Amino acid sequence: MGEISADKIRKVEVAYSPEMFDLHYEDSDAVVVVIDVLRATSAICTAIDNGVNSITPVEHLEEAKEHKKKGFLVGAERKGQQVEGFDFGNSPFDYKDEVVRGKDLVLTTTNGTRAFQKAKVSDCVVAGAFVNLTALCSFLEKMDRNVLLLCAGWKGRFNLEDTLLAGAVADKLTSNNERFGNHSDSALAAIELYHNAENDLYKFLENSSHRKRLSSLNLEEDIIYCLSKDKTPVVPILKDGKLVKHLP
Amino acid sequence: MGEISADKIRKVEVAYSPEMFDLHYEDSDAVVVVIDVLRATSAICTAIDNGVNSITPVEHLEEAKEHKKKGFLVGAERKGQQVEGFDFGNSPFDYKDEVVRGKDLVLTTTNGTRAFQKAKVSDCVVAGAFVNLTALCSFLEKMDRNVLLLCAGWKGRFNLEDTLLAGAVADKLTSNNERFGNHSDSALAAIELYHNAENDLYKFLENSSHRKRLSSLNLEEDIIYCLSKDKTPVVPILKDGKLVKHLP
Repeated sequence: MGEISADKIRKVEVAYSPEMFDLHYEDSDAVVVVIDVLRATSAICTAIDNGVNSITPVEHLEEAKEHKKKGFLVGAERKGQQVEGFDFGNSPFDYKDEVVRGKDLVLTTTNGTRAFQKAKVSDCVVAGAFVNLTALCSFLEKMDRNVLLLCAGWKGRFNLEDTLLAGAVADKLTSNNERFGNHSDSALAAIELYHNAENDLYKFLENSSHRKRLSSLNLEEDIIYCLSKDKTPVVPILKDGKLVKHLP
Repeated sequence: MGEISADKIRKVEVAYSPEMFDLHYEDSDAVVVVIDVLRATSAICTAIDNGVNSITPVEHLEEAKEHKKKGFLVGAERKGQQVEGFDFGNSPFDYKDEVVRGKDLVLTTTNGTRAFQKAKVSDCVVAGAFVNLTALCSFLEKMDRNVLLLCAGWKGRFNLEDTLLAGAVADKLTSNNERFGNHSDSALAAIELYHNAENDLYKFLENSSHRKRLSSLNLEEDIIYCLSKDKTPVVPILKDGKLVKHLP
């Protein structure tokens, strides 16, 4: 640990499901990174990068419908598909369109938006994905606080692609910067898995349940995009319930 | 999949914390394997192997005290140490003594007994550890049902040693027997981690939180024993709230 005193060492932990969030969060005062690689947080980063003014994550379809009635553009995904009656699903490509620029959007997805609901007990919640990996890690280093990587998972269960991003972040933080300690078993496991996968994320995820689910829906292009690193320098951050662009 | 019809394929899943158990268990009708490698399930296997008649896992110290008053021999561990006023902690070596032979014991530990409380909604709950790995896998193959590997973790958080045993079991089942499919991401991750670790479990766990916790209590001998495979052919199974020897 060199000359860093123990009270300056920041913890990096991974909650593998929103169900585990509370136990990991208690007393940690951590920055929370919500991770839903396929595809909510990848779409959110893409939208903010494309000039969307804000995205309000809401958990239930009913809330999303209320916003739609009020005139918002609303994205809604369930079971990997866009819900009828809404403007978008959660494909990142839906949010590259010019129509969203400058707008305030609302989004509900199977897993990601539940994770944001849990996370918002923290005063600092950001969206993480491979598409903003380097920007996210720089942000976390600057914050210099404990980090809790919250995997959205699939209906409360463990999933592999969110774990790999958590591993990528934990690996970058703990190898670049001795102020970040990876004492947690959850971070050690995610880093191991990321090391096994990093040379070919797409192939590593070949047998994963969600890649299969999306492949069966002909979403290969989405998967390839969502597993690409550093497509954008934005870090979406939660302010008053809305995800907006973090301004350094 | 060869000639096995889809309805004969058994699922293998891992719940990485008792907090995730309910979501994994719903509708799965699975055999549940409770895993607390360091040290509850290793101790339970050792005790049953040494002729203990039964072990009743109880969650709270109060219940354990009630049993003590009634004349039972009671093991109690909190924070890695034996609780004052009880007969044993959760070191496997505590249960190798002749004094326990033929007796009905009661046990409460920080993590393992909570996992048993959760698991008992299943009609088939067994204790798994490296010390009974091969016997456990043979039992699960014979049962020919879905398998849910429930990691006790540490106070609801992910832990590495329980994950490695889950990976060892999932690996054995899915490589030996085409009736077991490892479609779940949780099993895929555990198998990957086990493959990274299997040549030297002790070294792999060098940085794990619980190995450090026990090392600081001078429990190296316990750790080495708990990471040893196949010290016993017993499979402790829950019957009417008591863990007893499974009789084939």
